[in-house]
Amino acid sequence: MEEHEPLLDVMSELATSASAFQRLSTTNGPAAAAAAAAATRQMSDDEIIDVSLASVGGGSGGSGGAQAEPPGSDNESDFGAHSKSYGTYNASSEDTDLPLGVGQYEDFHTIDWLRDIARDRLRHRHIVKKKKESCWDSLKGWHDAWSGWMCVLIVGCAAGLTAGVIDIGANWMFDIKNGICPSQFYFSREQCCWDSNSTFVQQDCPEWQTWPNVFGATDAHGVWYYLLQYFMYVFWSVFVGLLAVTLVRQFAPYACGSGIPEIKTILSGFIIRGYLGKWTYVIKSVTMMMAVSAGLSLGKEGPMVHMACCIGNIISYLFPKYGKNEAKKREILSAASAAGVAVAFGAPIGGVLFSLEEVSYYFPLKTLWRSFFCALVATFVLRSINPFGTSHLVMFYIDYNSPWFFFELIPFIILGVFGGLVGAFFIKANIHWCKYRKASKLGLYPTAEVLAITLITAVISFPNVYTRINTSELIAELFQQCGPEDSTDLCDYNRNFTNVNHGSESAESGHGVTRALWQLSLALVFKLLITIFTFGIKVPAGLFIPSMAIGAIAGRMLGVAMEQLAFHNPEWFIFKDMCNRNEACITPGIYAMVGAAAMLGGVTRMTVSLVVIMFELTGGIQYIVPIMAAVMTSKWVGDAVLKEGIYDAHIYLNGYPFLDSKLEFTHTTIAADVMRPR
Amino acid sequence: MEEHEPLLDVMSELATSASAFQRLSTTNGPAAAAAAAAATRQMSDDEIIDVSLASVGGGSGGSGGAQAEPPGSDNESDFGAHSKSYGTYNASSEDTDLPLGVGQYEDFHTIDWLRDIARDRLRHRHIVKKKKESCWDSLKGWHDAWSGWMCVLIVGCAAGLTAGVIDIGANWMFDIKNGICPSQFYFSREQCCWDSNSTFVQQDCPEWQTWPNVFGATDAHGVWYYLLQYFMYVFWSVFVGLLAVTLVRQFAPYACGSGIPEIKTILSGFIIRGYLGKWTYVIKSVTMMMAVSAGLSLGKEGPMVHMACCIGNIISYLFPKYGKNEAKKREILSAASAAGVAVAFGAPIGGVLFSLEEVSYYFPLKTLWRSFFCALVATFVLRSINPFGTSHLVMFYIDYNSPWFFFELIPFIILGVFGGLVGAFFIKANIHWCKYRKASKLGLYPTAEVLAITLITAVISFPNVYTRINTSELIAELFQQCGPEDSTDLCDYNRNFTNVNHGSESAESGHGVTRALWQLSLALVFKLLITIFTFGIKVPAGLFIPSMAIGAIAGRMLGVAMEQLAFHNPEWFIFKDMCNRNEACITPGIYAMVGAAAMLGGVTRMTVSLVVIMFELTGGIQYIVPIMAAVMTSKWVGDAVLKEGIYDAHIYLNGYPFLDSKLEFTHTTIAADVMRPR
Repeated sequence: MEEHEPLLDVMSELATSASAFQRLSTTNGPAAAAAAAAATRQMSDDEIIDVSLASVGGGSGGSGGAQAEPPGSDNESDFGAHSKSYGTYNASSEDTDLPLGVGQYEDFHTIDWLRDIARDRLRHRHIVKKKKESCWDSLKGWHDAWSGWMCVLIVGCAAGLTAGVIDIGANWMFDIKNGICPSQFYFSREQCCWDSNSTFVQQDCPEWQTWPNVFGATDAHGVWYYLLQYFMYVFWSVFVGLLAVTLVRQFAPYACGSGIPEIKTILSGFIIRGYLGKWTYVIKSVTMMMAVSAGLSLGKEGPMVHMACCIGNIISYLFPKYGKNEAKKREILSAASAAGVAVAFGAPIGGVLFSLEEVSYYFPLKTLWRSFFCALVATFVLRSINPFGTSHLVMFYIDYNSPWFFFELIPFIILGVFGGLVGAFFIKANIHWCKYRKASKLGLYPTAEVLAITLITAVISFPNVYTRINTSELIAELFQQCGPEDSTDLCDYNRNFTNVNHGSESAESGHGVTRALWQLSLALVFKLLITIFTFGIKVPAGLFIPSMAIGAIAGRMLGVAMEQLAFHNPEWFIFKDMCNRNEACITPGIYAMVGAAAMLGGVTRMTVSLVVIMFELTGGIQYIVPIMAAVMTSKWVGDAVLKEGIYDAHIYLNGYPFLDSKLEFTHTTIAADVMRPR
Repeated sequence: MEEHEPLLDVMSELATSASAFQRLSTTNGPAAAAAAAAATRQMSDDEIIDVSLASVGGGSGGSGGAQAEPPGSDNESDFGAHSKSYGTYNASSEDTDLPLGVGQYEDFHTIDWLRDIARDRLRHRHIVKKKKESCWDSLKGWHDAWSGWMCVLIVGCAAGLTAGVIDIGANWMFDIKNGICPSQFYFSREQCCWDSNSTFVQQDCPEWQTWPNVFGATDAHGVWYYLLQYFMYVFWSVFVGLLAVTLVRQFAPYACGSGIPEIKTILSGFIIRGYLGKWTYVIKSVTMMMAVSAGLSLGKEGPMVHMACCIGNIISYLFPKYGKNEAKKREILSAASAAGVAVAFGAPIGGVLFSLEEVSYYFPLKTLWRSFFCALVATFVLRSINPFGTSHLVMFYIDYNSPWFFFELIPFIILGVFGGLVGAFFIKANIHWCKYRKASKLGLYPTAEVLAITLITAVISFPNVYTRINTSELIAELFQQCGPEDSTDLCDYNRNFTNVNHGSESAESGHGVTRALWQLSLALVFKLLITIFTFGIKVPAGLFIPSMAIGAIAGRMLGVAMEQLAFHNPEWFIFKDMCNRNEACITPGIYAMVGAAAMLGGVTRMTVSLVVIMFELTGGIQYIVPIMAAVMTSKWVGDAVLKEGIYDAHIYLNGYPFLDSKLEFTHTTIAADVMRPR
């Protein structure tokens, strides 16, 4: 009986561990082969320049990365090895008995999920067995049971802290383009004006000095003032852009880009040493603030996910259960990526769903709960830091509550089509440009490229007020409804102010609106084009915010058009029932919101997570049907034009061995097709 | 070459279909065995009374249900059968060639996922092959490709329609307890008063006649009036209760209960004939309105999921791809259950997540998108019907926007602990009672049981205003903040009305609040106890609303206590920084909301989906951290006391062969433990 027991255990363990392998059955054979194929191919890619430059991590680097185990043989031999190690398992040799030691995977190899999970079960069994022996061992057992939760707790705290610091830092660095707080130079404009007793109108804060002020120009409407401001804007942009690219290239080549394609690949079971290391983390944090401050058309939300995963990776080494087991570590990384989105958008549930829908490969319910907890902690810590000085987390809070009407579904669906088409166009153009960069000499001069893009962006951005301001501010402004107190161009309606209570009544657009629409359409074209060239340069760059901005601009423009249509044609049958002259029946802000969701959907092809993120961002719970309709349309249209989203496209572009779980292979597929995508 | 191709195809098909089997590796061996074991065991259970009574469906019923294939043998023999059928596959014999024909599974058998998916691939391949032959065939191919989306579209529409009709019907039937609209007897109170020109104060609608009015009693404060009202209330309750149980017993025994445990089992691959049939659907729709109208402590949200799944099942027969393939049909059922929650709560995203987290077994991304679309359509249709007469879908919309403070996390976590403990107590007590019912003679008299419960509920409910009203109205009232215009007991504060603008200032509680608290505490105890006995009787009965009501009462009481604590002790250090006398710093409504979430979490052990449902219900996006904290605590505490949620507990109670994907087996588990839970 004593002899038979281990065999029984092995069987039950294999049976139960099978339940943990949701998608692993595919991973084992073809993915390992794909890994080998892709790793070999990758060597010839330009991308490998970065890889071989990597000075971080202890891996074997580029040259050793091309060898993988022969794909066919690993299955059976591994099983044999397992049963042997099960049989000879010895309590005292916990570390030495592991088949390949701790750093058992080489760089650019695919992990063996089955073996890692089996190893974890062995470890666990050992702990459970010893638990009754002494008090210390039972404490160790307790620690082991809770270490997953502890780990995500720490990851959540660290992610929240990082996000808080970066938010404050990026704000300060963006403001320093325009001026400085002479008393405390490390204050952002808002912090500088907090001390001020003056009223809170934007222009009147004597403590804050614009650069022309500092250099002695006082006439805010003079040419000299404008030129000085322009020069400082461009100068600072180029300076921090250059600094960012230099830092990235010198210290952490992996810190560039959004990181989400690579994280998807890593979570699917690939090893890229140093990609989630501490240097990547530090350099990406610093350079991300710089990239935002340089005014480039990029967001800090995608990179936040990468940084949260870096945190997850670093913290997991405190818990050998996760740090020494690549398969288990991926559970922490899934939770960390949820925390990343949670702090990036203040959207904890959106983060969990993003991790589930977009990045994770293996997402059992236990990981769902841990991700939930991790996102909760991260959001909580960020809220405690309160980087924006508002008591709520909602970034683009909308304060209107106007209903939407059924006929509006038509423009919403048009926005969805727009998002799908433009999103697909964007992906195609961006991939085309990235391929060109790899093939041509351009790829050899990343610094020059960043310099050029920064210069062009800054020079073109400054004259247009909608591109000059921070992109998130632009989105927030586009989402808003015009109240009677708003005096911006976008809200310049010929209103009749005798009746103050009906501030939101329908009105004819004034000259300001026309001017704003012109500027917005220029901004739309510019943002779309420059983002194509920006996503892929060697600085940290996220896509969420630029995509949302493009969609929001288009949406707002359509919204204003609809509004004016309804105002000038109140007798049309679609408007007659719904609208009356005294109340605004069309809110352009809703269109901006829907447009932003549609465009983001077209670019990333997210669905559920995107809708949740949108309403966590805005609080607009009653617009869920329009947002869902637009996102669904956008996904359908986008999928019809181009099958994959931007992240998958970049995965294929870089030749990562990623076996998409969404892919369905048709019946004439042969194994080679699966193994070699593209 | 021609000979080899089929073999290659088979291989690639098996490889790719393996990717579709997320959790199937476990289902195949142990679940089939568990099915056999459980089905055998079930025969001795009392529950089988219902099963053998079932007059619906064409299955072999109870007696034939105990036989299953020998668990060990099916794996290899099936594979053999497959390769044979692959080899001999003939285009013209699509229907006859299927291994066991259309109704190939017997009642109470577990389906063979692998075979069904393989069959679907065969069918698909056949269509793809023929596609190029003629225009008609290519049209058929197109229809086949889109039939999944078409199917969920129709399911969504039907679910939305059903929900609209039921909402209107239940409203009317609930109002008829109190009175009638003589001009149009089929109008609910609200509809009746729409025509009225009188102001919209609750008491003043001459069109609506209470029963005492009808019988000639005019003095609304007289004893006679009260007694007449009481009598009619009890009489109507007992009458509709009796009608409901008779209908259920006569026509559709499967229509009782919430249906969620059975749907979980069905989705995990079990066959219960007639459980999702048209009779169940019709009878459940009708009797659910009656059960709600009988004033029983139950909700119509859980049954709505069951009814949506019935719709899914019925509609799937329009599309042979789904109707004739049990494995594929489950994809539609997953989407349908999402639509069910979506229309029950007006929470489309919550529905998708509920389907993912709670009921579904196999949930690939394609099903996620379809569920999303199905929920969207259902929500849209329901909104078009607009059963509540409000333009937004949010059921318990909260209109306050007051912040919460960090120290409040302590009471929120206390609510979480309360939810976890009381939830676990509720499950234990309810399971205990259900076991007693099965074991004793009580189970033989379901009609008498319903009669008794209805009578007791009605007699006790009427005197207490908080139990007399509809449970959803109670929840809505508890979630609200007191404004200066509110004159209910709960809002009876000794306010200083000289300053009208500060309506929400902190104030001492008046006598009304004390009275309300007393009544609420009685209601709490009563609801908790009566729900234990109610959940399990032979009428349709959901648990969401009663659980939320219990939690909301507890939360509101704690909230008022905190509020008064802060008012009377403003010098305490936790209150000193946060609160000042002129502004209310504690909103009892938030506590009610958090309490409702915590209690529902304790009973069902949902996490992410629950949080999303809560904020789709209330629109309270800025209270996401409190709700998440309470739900997480509640889950932890609940799991510590009792491992399974109410649905899993009922699955075990009824002996369904359900292999929980959340279960993790420890290392000493032997196969028999997995096969025989309990």
